[in-house]
Amino acid sequence: MINQKNDEKTVIFGKNAVIEALEAGEREFNKILIANSSRSDEKIERIKKLAQKQGIVFQFVAKEKLNSIEPEGRHQGIIALISPVKYTELEDFILENREKYAPVVILDGVEDSHNVGAIIRSCVCAGIKGIILPSRRGVLINSTVEKTSAGAINHISVIKTNSLVNAIQKLKEQNWWVIASDHHSDKNYYDIDYTDMNFALIMGAEHAGISKSLLKLSDFRVKIPMLTKFNSLNVSNAAAVILFESVRQRELKK
Amino acid sequence: MINQKNDEKTVIFGKNAVIEALEAGEREFNKILIANSSRSDEKIERIKKLAQKQGIVFQFVAKEKLNSIEPEGRHQGIIALISPVKYTELEDFILENREKYAPVVILDGVEDSHNVGAIIRSCVCAGIKGIILPSRRGVLINSTVEKTSAGAINHISVIKTNSLVNAIQKLKEQNWWVIASDHHSDKNYYDIDYTDMNFALIMGAEHAGISKSLLKLSDFRVKIPMLTKFNSLNVSNAAAVILFESVRQRELKK
Repeated sequence: MINQKNDEKTVIFGKNAVIEALEAGEREFNKILIANSSRSDEKIERIKKLAQKQGIVFQFVAKEKLNSIEPEGRHQGIIALISPVKYTELEDFILENREKYAPVVILDGVEDSHNVGAIIRSCVCAGIKGIILPSRRGVLINSTVEKTSAGAINHISVIKTNSLVNAIQKLKEQNWWVIASDHHSDKNYYDIDYTDMNFALIMGAEHAGISKSLLKLSDFRVKIPMLTKFNSLNVSNAAAVILFESVRQRELKK
Repeated sequence: MINQKNDEKTVIFGKNAVIEALEAGEREFNKILIANSSRSDEKIERIKKLAQKQGIVFQFVAKEKLNSIEPEGRHQGIIALISPVKYTELEDFILENREKYAPVVILDGVEDSHNVGAIIRSCVCAGIKGIILPSRRGVLINSTVEKTSAGAINHISVIKTNSLVNAIQKLKEQNWWVIASDHHSDKNYYDIDYTDMNFALIMGAEHAGISKSLLKLSDFRVKIPMLTKFNSLNVSNAAAVILFESVRQRELKK
């Protein structure tokens, strides 16, 4: 069944419904959640096989998690989360954009849908061409992200990847420069020249920040200096500050 | 009764409870909501009188509004919204800060608690000393604002005023310069020198923007230039962009 009622209007639950949607191949899956307690049977095996074939992540979670998404208990231990927008393949994005001005933003596990929506809004206003999200951690595109983005989601390529490390390596090979927003850095975000390169700006998760493996791949690490000891900017606000510094620099160069 | 359960933990409902709180004078009232349908009686008259005396706004609203705050229907047509923090009087703020570097932010009816919380967070990080909110429109300090501010609310003076026009006039008399964030402006936000003045930055409501009466009082109107036609930045992101431009300028002057 397809639940259209609540905020997660893009949810499919029940074994048969999920199998049908996977076979039809017309929906954009974020991930498939399977209850820990589910006994494997023919249908679940079929779902796993179809998901693997299509590169869709499936995760085993507590039954309570499924109940919170579909409180009427008709999920039969299985729920598919569907994106309201189509994702773009990274390879296609790179092919289409490597000769153009096409900066991207990478979200390393940002967990709050409102933050992701606000960041996408700022990205579009600041001329960012793509946003990259990891399949397994943090938020993918759901109806809250779509709503919070105020329509911006339709003006940017959204890329979902099973490996941010691989994605960043591919971007670097095609001359994107990687900037990590990291408050441990000595360098200020306005000490970089954003105008003469394609950049990929990595923003970390709300509490954990950016993973070490991604920090290692970065060409620049930048911080936003604070005027007080209270050093805790909301991630969407931090992204806006850095992105509009790139806009300021471009406008001044015109 | 004092409702501690839900998000609006700072709610007092029922005629007697509101009268007691007003007489005790120890709570910080945001406003008092009275159901349109309430028949006036001795207690309601007493509440109005006490509220007027203390300069507390009371508003007549549909009963459904009260039911949404206190769903168990024990409100007797009256609910007081309480702030989790103490407000500062504008006059006291000015007296204490007019000789110092003490920029402020004025929110002209911002309606989303998450936006207000995020703005307060950015304010504190950017060295802003006060935030001014109108009593009658938009959000005052509630538990969602407090939570979203991530503790920042305790590091800034919060001022609530019945008239933003009066508040701005008082600030101008003491040499605060008033900057309005207005996307109709020709001037870019980075074309102002923020370092040699105390400024008061006005941010408008999510949809309506800044009221004409406040625009008229502004010394500068600034816009954030966009790189695309999609011209719709979230208000907390816009505030962060302008505030951190003031930080950038101060840091470069050091």
